[in-house]
Amino acid sequence: MKASQFLISTLKEAPADAEVISHQLMTRAGMIRKLAGGVYTYMPMGLRVIRKVEAIIREEMARAGAIELLMPVIQPAELWQESGRWEQYGPELLRIRDRHQRDFIVQPTSEEVITDIARQEIRSYRQMPKNLFQIQTKFRDERRPRFGVMRGREFTMKDGYSFDRSREAALASYQAMFEAYSNIFSRSGLAFRAVAADTGSIGGSASHEFQVMAETGEDAIAFCPDSDFAANVELAEALPLLSVRSAATSPMTKTATPDRSKCEAVAELLGLPLSQTVKSLVLAVDVMEPTKDGDDSMRTPRIIGTRIWLLLVRGDHELNEIKASKVPGLKGFRFATEAEIVEHFGCPPGYLGPIGMARPVSIVVDRTVANMSDFVCGANDIGYHFTGVNWGRDLPAPGGSEIAIADLRNVVDGDPSPDGKGRLMIQRGIEVGHVFYLGTKYSEAMNASFVDEDGKSKPIEMGCYGIGVTRLPAAAIEQNHDEKGIIWPRPIAPFDLVITPLGYLRSENVRKAADDLYDRFRQAGIDVILDNRDERPGAMFADWELIGVPLRVTVGERGLKEGMVELTVRRGLVTTTVSLDGALEAVKDSLETC
Amino acid sequence: MKASQFLISTLKEAPADAEVISHQLMTRAGMIRKLAGGVYTYMPMGLRVIRKVEAIIREEMARAGAIELLMPVIQPAELWQESGRWEQYGPELLRIRDRHQRDFIVQPTSEEVITDIARQEIRSYRQMPKNLFQIQTKFRDERRPRFGVMRGREFTMKDGYSFDRSREAALASYQAMFEAYSNIFSRSGLAFRAVAADTGSIGGSASHEFQVMAETGEDAIAFCPDSDFAANVELAEALPLLSVRSAATSPMTKTATPDRSKCEAVAELLGLPLSQTVKSLVLAVDVMEPTKDGDDSMRTPRIIGTRIWLLLVRGDHELNEIKASKVPGLKGFRFATEAEIVEHFGCPPGYLGPIGMARPVSIVVDRTVANMSDFVCGANDIGYHFTGVNWGRDLPAPGGSEIAIADLRNVVDGDPSPDGKGRLMIQRGIEVGHVFYLGTKYSEAMNASFVDEDGKSKPIEMGCYGIGVTRLPAAAIEQNHDEKGIIWPRPIAPFDLVITPLGYLRSENVRKAADDLYDRFRQAGIDVILDNRDERPGAMFADWELIGVPLRVTVGERGLKEGMVELTVRRGLVTTTVSLDGALEAVKDSLETC
Repeated sequence: MKASQFLISTLKEAPADAEVISHQLMTRAGMIRKLAGGVYTYMPMGLRVIRKVEAIIREEMARAGAIELLMPVIQPAELWQESGRWEQYGPELLRIRDRHQRDFIVQPTSEEVITDIARQEIRSYRQMPKNLFQIQTKFRDERRPRFGVMRGREFTMKDGYSFDRSREAALASYQAMFEAYSNIFSRSGLAFRAVAADTGSIGGSASHEFQVMAETGEDAIAFCPDSDFAANVELAEALPLLSVRSAATSPMTKTATPDRSKCEAVAELLGLPLSQTVKSLVLAVDVMEPTKDGDDSMRTPRIIGTRIWLLLVRGDHELNEIKASKVPGLKGFRFATEAEIVEHFGCPPGYLGPIGMARPVSIVVDRTVANMSDFVCGANDIGYHFTGVNWGRDLPAPGGSEIAIADLRNVVDGDPSPDGKGRLMIQRGIEVGHVFYLGTKYSEAMNASFVDEDGKSKPIEMGCYGIGVTRLPAAAIEQNHDEKGIIWPRPIAPFDLVITPLGYLRSENVRKAADDLYDRFRQAGIDVILDNRDERPGAMFADWELIGVPLRVTVGERGLKEGMVELTVRRGLVTTTVSLDGALEAVKDSLETC
Repeated sequence: MKASQFLISTLKEAPADAEVISHQLMTRAGMIRKLAGGVYTYMPMGLRVIRKVEAIIREEMARAGAIELLMPVIQPAELWQESGRWEQYGPELLRIRDRHQRDFIVQPTSEEVITDIARQEIRSYRQMPKNLFQIQTKFRDERRPRFGVMRGREFTMKDGYSFDRSREAALASYQAMFEAYSNIFSRSGLAFRAVAADTGSIGGSASHEFQVMAETGEDAIAFCPDSDFAANVELAEALPLLSVRSAATSPMTKTATPDRSKCEAVAELLGLPLSQTVKSLVLAVDVMEPTKDGDDSMRTPRIIGTRIWLLLVRGDHELNEIKASKVPGLKGFRFATEAEIVEHFGCPPGYLGPIGMARPVSIVVDRTVANMSDFVCGANDIGYHFTGVNWGRDLPAPGGSEIAIADLRNVVDGDPSPDGKGRLMIQRGIEVGHVFYLGTKYSEAMNASFVDEDGKSKPIEMGCYGIGVTRLPAAAIEQNHDEKGIIWPRPIAPFDLVITPLGYLRSENVRKAADDLYDRFRQAGIDVILDNRDERPGAMFADWELIGVPLRVTVGERGLKEGMVELTVRRGLVTTTVSLDGALEAVKDSLETC
C-alpha cells in the first residue's frame, strides 16, 4: 500500500467525550469516526485491524472444527417471544416495526435464530457435535454508550454456538472453545486471563470470561499470581480469614457510641482495628401467593408475607450480592425498608446487631465472621454498640440450627486463593470474550430436540461463545500505548511496517531506494505501507507513532550515502542503523519479536 | 473440508413460495434458510459462495485503487434529513427510534454517511481522487419481497463512492469502476452486459447497469449482437423505422370501424398491417401556482391550469413513459382523465386522432410515425377511423411549428441499433451492479466542499457504485443450472471439487485412496471437500449435483483394482476415467475450463 492511495487521517486533539485512552487514540489515529452516540464508522486504518482480528478468529475457529454461517441482523420478534427474551430483555433490545407493523428486533445476539436453525437441521445424534459461528453486526441500545468502541451500541461480535447430545459432550465442546479462545487472544498479542464468571442474562451454568488486564477495565478480577486461579470478583470464593475461633477474653459490654453509625467511626472511637467490628445488613424476601394451575399470569402475584434476614460481614468487608442471592431462601431478596428494620430490630439502621432484636429474623454470617471473637456489633439501641461479643456465649454459635454460615463477601487483595496456592491479587480487566455452557435452556424453550442412539427424543445440549471483535482492538490499545500513541501487537497492527522516506518527492535517490525496499518487503510477504505523502519528517514520524505501526524504516539522503537506513521499533522507539542490503533480514528479525 | 465436519443440508422439495429457480435451488441445496419475509440466513454452504464473491470484489477494488472502510448499519436520521432523502424515500426506508426516542434508519445505502465523512476528511484537491467502499448489510423494506435473495429485504451490498475535484476526473473514476465491475463479473463467471440505465431515485446523470442475462430477469435489455451497444429498454434510443416518408397514394377517407377501439381490431377489420395504424395517447400536465419567495411550502400548491397533449406512436409500438417525460413540457405528466379527453377531442378514448379535435392540444409524434404515409388513425367520432391519412396534406407535417417529433417508443426486437451497426435484440436481465455518476447532488446538499488549486472552494464531484453481493449468486444460478440442480461457475463455487468415495466406512482401500487424494488436492491448493458421510451413492451424487460443485472425483473399489477413479464434470455430467496417479493433473486441467 502506498499512503497516497490510502486514507490517513490523524488528528491533533481527541474528542471531548473520549474518556479512555483507546477512544482518544483510535480517534486521533483516524481508526474510527463517530456517527452517533455509540455508533462508529471504521475508517480504512481501523478496518485493517478488525480484518486481522477476524482472520485470526476464523483460523482458530476452523482449527477447532467450527463452521461459519451468517444470520440476519434484523430478526422477527416471534422467536424472541418463544424463548421469553422479548419480555425479559430491557430497553437495550432495539425493537422495530416493519412497514406491515410486524415486530422485529436488531439482534444483540443470536441464540434464538441459531436454535431455530438447529431444530430444523439437527434431528439425530449422528449430526452432532456441531459448532456454528458468525461474525456479524450487533446492536445493544446502551443507555449511556461510552469509551468509544469499547461500550458502543453497534458493534461486531463473533458469536458461536455448539450443539451436543449430552452434557459431557457439551462440556468437551466448551473446553475446545475455551482453548480456541485462549489461542485467539494469545495470537492477538494480548495479556489476558480466563476467569470464572457469573452467567448474567444469557443463562446457563458454566462460564468463563476472557479479560484483557487494563486499569481502565470495567470488571474487577481476582487472581492468584502463583497459580491458574482467576475469577470475576463477583464470583471468586472468599475463604475464612480466621481458621479457628479464639477463646473469649472480654465480657460483652454495651458501650455508648453516640453518632457513630458506621463501623469505621466506631472502631476509631473505641481504638480497635476495623477488623474487630461486624457490619449488619438487613434483607427482605417477599413471599408470593402461589400461582394456580391454569392461571394465565396476567395478574401480578400478591405478596402474602415477608421474611426478614440479618447478614453479618466483617467491618472491613463488602457484601457480595450475587453470593447473598445464592443463600437458600434469599433468592430474589431486596434490602429491607427502614420501617421493616425498626419493626424487627426496635432501632433504625446504624446500630443494628444480632442480639436483642424486637422480632425474630433469619441470621447468616460470613465465614470470617463465624470465627471472630471479642467482636463489636450494634446493640439495637440508638447510640450503642456491644463490645467483646463472643459466639456460643452471648449468642448461639453459627453453623448450628439458629445461625447459618455462608460465603457472603467480596474477596479482597491479599485473601488466600481458593485453590490454596497463594494469595489473591485484584486487577481490573476488559471483557473481550465469554464462553457459556447453556445446557438446555434454549433447546427446551424452543423445542430443539434430537433422537438419541437409544431412540429417545432429547433436548440438544448447547453452549454459546462470544468475542467482541470491535472491542478487542480497543482493549489491545488500553494495554499497549505510550504518550506518543498506540503500540500495536504485530498480529493485529494495521501494517507490519512503514517506510518513511525523507524527501520522497525531492530526492531521486531516496525515492528509488524507498520504492526498491517497498518492492522487496512486499515480495517477502510483509504488510508494508510506503509513506509517499511528502510530509515533513516530524509530522510524518508523529503520525506513525500515533498510528502505532510496529516497525519503521527511514530512508534519507545522508544514510544512503553510507548505504544505510534506520530501523525503529515502535515499542520503546529504539532506532538502529542497518545496511540497505540487510534491511529485509533486519526487519524480519524485528517482526519476530514485536 | 470433510463433509462430516461441515453442514450439508439438502432438501427434496423447494418451499411453496419459491417462484424462481435460484430461490428453489438455493433452498434445496441448503445455501439459505428463510427467517422472515425477505430475510435469510446464509448457511455454511451459501456463505462460502458469498465469501468467494467478496474476495473477487476486494481484489478488483484494490486493483482499481479503492479503499475499504465500514459504515454503520444503523444511521442517524439527521444526515438523511440533510440530504432530503428522509422525506423522499418511501416506506422502503426502515425508520426506527432508539430508547431515547431519537430517529434512526437501517441503511439501504450510504451516500449520506460517506458524504459526511468526506466533508470531514477531504479539504484539498491534493487529497483526491479518493475511492472508498464497504461490503455491508443493507435493508430495504420491500412491500413484497420475493425470489429469495434476489429481491430480499436484508441483503449484503458492496457500495463504493468516488470523490474527485472535477467532472472530468469524476468521469475517469466512473470509467475505472466500470472496468473494475466488468472484471468482477467476468471473473465470477457470469454472462452479463453493461447497459445504459435510468438513474432512478439515486440521482445523477450517467449510469450503467450490469445485467446478468437470464429469462427470469426483471429488466428488459436491448442490445446489438454485432456491437457493444446495450441499454435498458427504458433508455434505448429508438430510431425511425422509415428513413423517408413515401408519397401519398390514397385519399383520406372516414371509415366506419364499429366497436373497434384498438389498433389491432381496426387493422384486422380493414385488412391492413398493424404497422399502418397509429395509436393516440392523451397526456395532461397540470400547471401549478408559482411558489412565492419565503413561502414555507407547508401548503400544497394550487393547480391553475392543465395542458393536454396528444402523443402518437405506431399501432405495433409501445409508449415509453420515461422518454415521454423528457419531451420539453411533459415533465411530471399524467394520463388525461376521460372527462379531459371528451372535452378536448369531443369523443371518448378508442377513436381519437390528430384531425378534427374539439379544442387545440399539443401534438408530439414518434420518429417512425413522422415518416408514415397512408396511415390509419381515429376520427374523433365514435365508431370511425380515418384511412389514407398523409402528413402535409391532411394535417401539418411534423417537425414544424405545430407538430413535434420525438423518440417516444420502446425499442423492439429487430430495430436498428442506435450505433448503426446492426439490429437490436431484446433479452431479460438481472441487475447485479450499478455505476452512477452523481455529480454534486450530495456534496451540495450536505456542503462537502474542497479548496481547489485556484484557492476556490468547490463542491466535491462524486460517483457511487453498487454490487448486490448476495444477489449475484442467485443471478449466477438463474444462468447456470439444469434439472439436477446448480452448476456453479468455478470461481464462486462453494468448493472446486468433491471427492465421493463409494463405501468410505466399509472399504479400507477406498478410504485410503480417498484420503490420499484429499491430501494431494489440498496440498495443490484445490478447494476440496471429501464426502465421508457414508451416504448411499445415489443420494450422495444427487446431493452434489444439486449443490453444483464443478468437479467430482468418485473413488470405488472396482475402479481402484485397475488403479482408476472417475472424474465427472458437473456441467453436462460428463464422466471420464482417469488413473489414480494422473487424477491431480486431470482435475487441474478440468478446473481451467469449468
